[in-house]
Formats: sequence, structure tokens, C-alpha cells
Amino acid sequence: MNELEIVERLRKMAGKKPSRGVIRGIGDDCAVFRPKPGEDLLLKTDQLIEGVHFPSSMAPEIVGERALARAFSDIAAAGGDPRCCLVALAVPRNKSEQWIRSFFRGLLRLARSTKTVLAGGDLAHDDKVHCSVMAIGAVARGKALTRDGAHPGDLLYVSGRLGKPWDQRIQPRLALGRKLAGKATACIDLSDGLSLDLHRLSKASGVAAQVDRIPVVRGTTLERALHGGEDYELLFTLPPRVKPPAGTTRIGAIVRGEAGTVWFEGKKLVPLGYDHFGS
Amino acid sequence: MNELEIVERLRKMAGKKPSRGVIRGIGDDCAVFRPKPGEDLLLKTDQLIEGVHFPSSMAPEIVGERALARAFSDIAAAGGDPRCCLVALAVPRNKSEQWIRSFFRGLLRLARSTKTVLAGGDLAHDDKVHCSVMAIGAVARGKALTRDGAHPGDLLYVSGRLGKPWDQRIQPRLALGRKLAGKATACIDLSDGLSLDLHRLSKASGVAAQVDRIPVVRGTTLERALHGGEDYELLFTLPPRVKPPAGTTRIGAIVRGEAGTVWFEGKKLVPLGYDHFGS
Repeated sequence: MNELEIVERLRKMAGKKPSRGVIRGIGDDCAVFRPKPGEDLLLKTDQLIEGVHFPSSMAPEIVGERALARAFSDIAAAGGDPRCCLVALAVPRNKSEQWIRSFFRGLLRLARSTKTVLAGGDLAHDDKVHCSVMAIGAVARGKALTRDGAHPGDLLYVSGRLGKPWDQRIQPRLALGRKLAGKATACIDLSDGLSLDLHRLSKASGVAAQVDRIPVVRGTTLERALHGGEDYELLFTLPPRVKPPAGTTRIGAIVRGEAGTVWFEGKKLVPLGYDHFGS
Repeated sequence: MNELEIVERLRKMAGKKPSRGVIRGIGDDCAVFRPKPGEDLLLKTDQLIEGVHFPSSMAPEIVGERALARAFSDIAAAGGDPRCCLVALAVPRNKSEQWIRSFFRGLLRLARSTKTVLAGGDLAHDDKVHCSVMAIGAVARGKALTRDGAHPGDLLYVSGRLGKPWDQRIQPRLALGRKLAGKATACIDLSDGLSLDLHRLSKASGVAAQVDRIPVVRGTTLERALHGGEDYELLFTLPPRVKPPAGTTRIGAIVRGEAGTVWFEGKKLVPLGYDHFGS
């Protein structure tokens, strides 16, 4: 099977007519996307590399789903609704067509359940699987959530429970993100661990944070909940009078202090979460 | 240097304030892009892999420039104006910070000269350099060029000369693409060789093509000009009464016949250009 045939098959798998603003999908030099008036677009790119982000033994459906889910978690953190995505995929020559098909089956399952169009991509050969997803979301004009708007006095919340096993299915918190758009003063998704992501949020906002309690997944350690990463929950701040959405837990508050400092159990929490370029 | 510090440095290199519709750039979960009314957006992703698309010995500035230029060549083929880009980059641990900086220096040189904003990205470690660029361009509503609109009787043109050495600097034909938007009946960029890309254009358009002559780079072979790839010129069709822009050569015409057939010197031209998944 050559590239033209694979692309043709993917076009069929991706579904009949383009929609959701995508007026030209797979198969041309560029995809063409027609934005709606009054919306801002959210742009995200994320990598998933065999042996770095997932083991070679992981089922291709799960790899494909994770590749898209990780990018969608960021769209959720910005309060957006995913519209379309592009997928750059490199696979070893010895990977079967079946592997590629299963990868896209997993990815398209999540795309369909979120009404997202696979609008294009690029295929190449490499020694191991390397996937980059580009996700495009939309949010009402001026309502995108960012990580830099937290104020002293805001309350700090997290969705779900932290310290999940790293290979669990990722369920991007898109519905929660949409509820928070225009309400939360700051929001970030927990991909690299609470300690590092809260450090990032408070540093960007020029504030400090105080953590009082953490909702921990049953059977895991506090250490893992603090520093483990791969939770893909949302961490956000609300002014004290705003009622938090269901399914979220207040874990602390934003306080005055050196930007980026996180207090926990009377001590400064060292940001130990996952940093690809850290030592 | 950890990831936060590298991202901070890149944010400084990318330049002060976001612009060109980018209202949130590097450093948040997503970039935020505000489209102009009356424009369609062009979305493109492209990979550049060490040992596949470029040799390890290539200077990092050139690698960075090529990564962006390849995607811009597709934006040009769609008649668009690049607005912003996101870059997913994986580098080996032993690559110096200097290498990453030089890579982005080359990429940003082309970005600046085309008024394109580096709006975000993702950094990771891998065994070798692997870069995926996401480019976002804009075109007047409904004016995007595609490869499927060529009609029998249209004349076939190419920009520049074909058969360039594969490691030459890529100069995406953005100005030409903008001139063709709304005028050309079909357009594609020559990345995989005239024989394969013309086959794609004529197949997508449901027509055949007749090639009469080819402007060849001095010192190269006709074979290379036909099948070599990496030319990054534009191949396009115009109705016979439309005057072609300067710097382009008429190489043939669109004819009735089996979709995808290309005639040259009285014979069917076999599409031998580069196909990553071909045998």
C-alpha cells in the first residue's frame, strides 16, 4: 500500500463530508477551516513518542486515543471546544498497515465522541513511532482561560482525584473546561504533576499558592498525587463568591508571596513534576 | 537549563508582543488566535526527521528554516498568507542548547521575513531530531486554491526551474500563491517530484495532463527534474485566457483522459516521485 492509498483509506475512515468549519479535509496541500464569527481559536501541538511517552507494547488504539486526548486536555484547560485536528505520524517500516489503522481507529473514536474532524496530516517512516497532534479548538471571543490570571484570595480547585496510574485512559475534561470559560481566573491541565503545574500557574500569575488537602486516587501515594503527572485533570482558580462546578474539590487558595511558591503542610513544595529538559 | 527556562528564552527570541491575530503566544496551555472576518484559514502539518528528510550533518539553522519552509510551501500552494506556526521538536539529550537555539534562529528568520508568529510548541527528548511544524495561514473567504479544479483546456504552468539540488534553501512561493488565489483552477506544490505531484493534481481533478517542456535547472538531468522532488515550486493550471504571472513557464495543458494520466514525449509518465510509503 502506498501513501496515496493509505491517505485515501484514512479519508474514508475519517468520515464522509467535512464539517465543524472544516470545508476542505484530508487530501489537499492544506486543510481549509472557516471560523465562526465571534470565536477565538485555540491552537495546541503535542508529541507522543514510543519509548518516551508510551511503551512499545501499548495497543495502537490506545496510543492513537492518547495522542489526541493529551492535546484535548489543553483545549479543555483553555475552556474550548475542539473543532478539528491534524496528525503527523512516523512509524517504523516493519509496523503493519494494521497498526496504522488501529492507531487511527483509536484516535477517531475520541474525535467522533467530541465531534472533532480529522482534517489532515503527514505520514513518514522512522525507527519508532512518533506522533504529533495539532488540535484546533474554539471559545467565545475573549473567554479563553489562561494560567496567568489568579489573584490572592482566589480559591484553588482540582477536578477528579490525583495520582492515577500513568497508563489509564485519558478523559479530557472538555465539559468542565467549557463551564469554566469566562469564570475561572486561571486554569491549567495537570499533565506534569500538581507540584510543577501549580508552580507554573502561580508563577505565571505572579502569586503564591497554599495547598490544604489533595483528593488522592484510592491505593496510590500522596507523593504520586503531588508529583506523578499524567492525571489530565484541571487545576483552576475561582473568585471566592463563585460556586465551583460539581465534581471538583477545593484544595487551597491563592496567597500573596513570591511568584511560583507553593505552600503545603507548612513547607515550600519543590516542583518535582515531569520536565523533559530537567536534570 | 530546564524546560521552563528554554521556553522563556524562546519566548524572548520569538519577539515581544504577539500579533497577526495571535493574542496569546508561547507559554500557556494553548495559543489563542483571533481570525479576521471574511477569511478562511489554511492548516498544514509537516514532519522533518533526521536521517530521513535531512542528514545529521546539516547546520541547525538550515534544519529550522527548512522545517518551516516546507509547511509554508503548502500554504503558498493554497494561495495563503502565513499567520502563525507551532513547532513540536524532539532532540537527543546530547544535543547542546546551542543546537536548539540555532534551530530556532533559522526558523525565526523565515518567520520574521514572512511576518509569521511562533505561537507555541512542544519540546521533548528523542534519539534523533524530529520536528513537526504546524502552520496556519489565511486566505480570502472561498479563495483557497486546491488541487482538484483543473479542467480540460486549462494550461499548465510551473514556477522557477526544476531539478534543484535537494539541500538548497527552500524559498516558499508565497507571493506567487497569493497572486494565484481565486485565479488558478488548481495548484499544488512540487515537493515529491513533478511526475508524482502532477499525477496527484490530475487524479484529484479527474483529468489527464500533457507535458510539452520542462524548465530544467542548469547542470541537472531531465530525469531529476521529472522525478527528483524537493523543488518547492508551484504547479498550477489557468484557464487559457488568464495571463500567467511573471516567473512562470507554461509546460503543457490539461486534457481529457483517464484521471491521473500524465503524457510526456508521447508516452505515459510513470509517477516515480518520492512516496514515503511506496515500495
